[in-house]
Amino acid sequence: MKEKNLISLAGMEKLIKQNEEIRVSEDAKYMLYRVLMEKSEKISKKAIMFAEHTGRKTIKSKDIRIAKD
Amino acid sequence: MKEKNLISLAGMEKLIKQNEEIRVSEDAKYMLYRVLMEKSEKISKKAIMFAEHTGRKTIKSKDIRIAKD
Repeated sequence: MKEKNLISLAGMEKLIKQNEEIRVSEDAKYMLYRVLMEKSEKISKKAIMFAEHTGRKTIKSKDIRIAKD
Repeated sequence: MKEKNLISLAGMEKLIKQNEEIRVSEDAKYMLYRVLMEKSEKISKKAIMFAEHTGRKTIKSKDIRIAKD
């Protein structure tokens, strides 16, 4: 599993800029990428736990919704 | 700016699964995508504010780091 295929590091610059007239360092892009990956991992682990807790083998949006907080 | 180019919706399934034997609904993928986009937007807005506050026109990783909390 190559992480770079899941969230594009190249996309981070556009995400950060938000149409502002500003530059973004390489380190900043990578930092945002890491933050999003960590967030995603935390949410997913919780979501799997919630689904399994109810005996489901499919993650639903409600699992993500309650896992995100 | 097409959001789908920045964080891949297709990648969400792999992110959620985490090598577990589990299925992921389409809605769940989209929910995680939205959560990550919102998180990214919040962080970026703060990071821009922090950089501008110090008179910089370049976002550095430290701006992201303090913006993420």
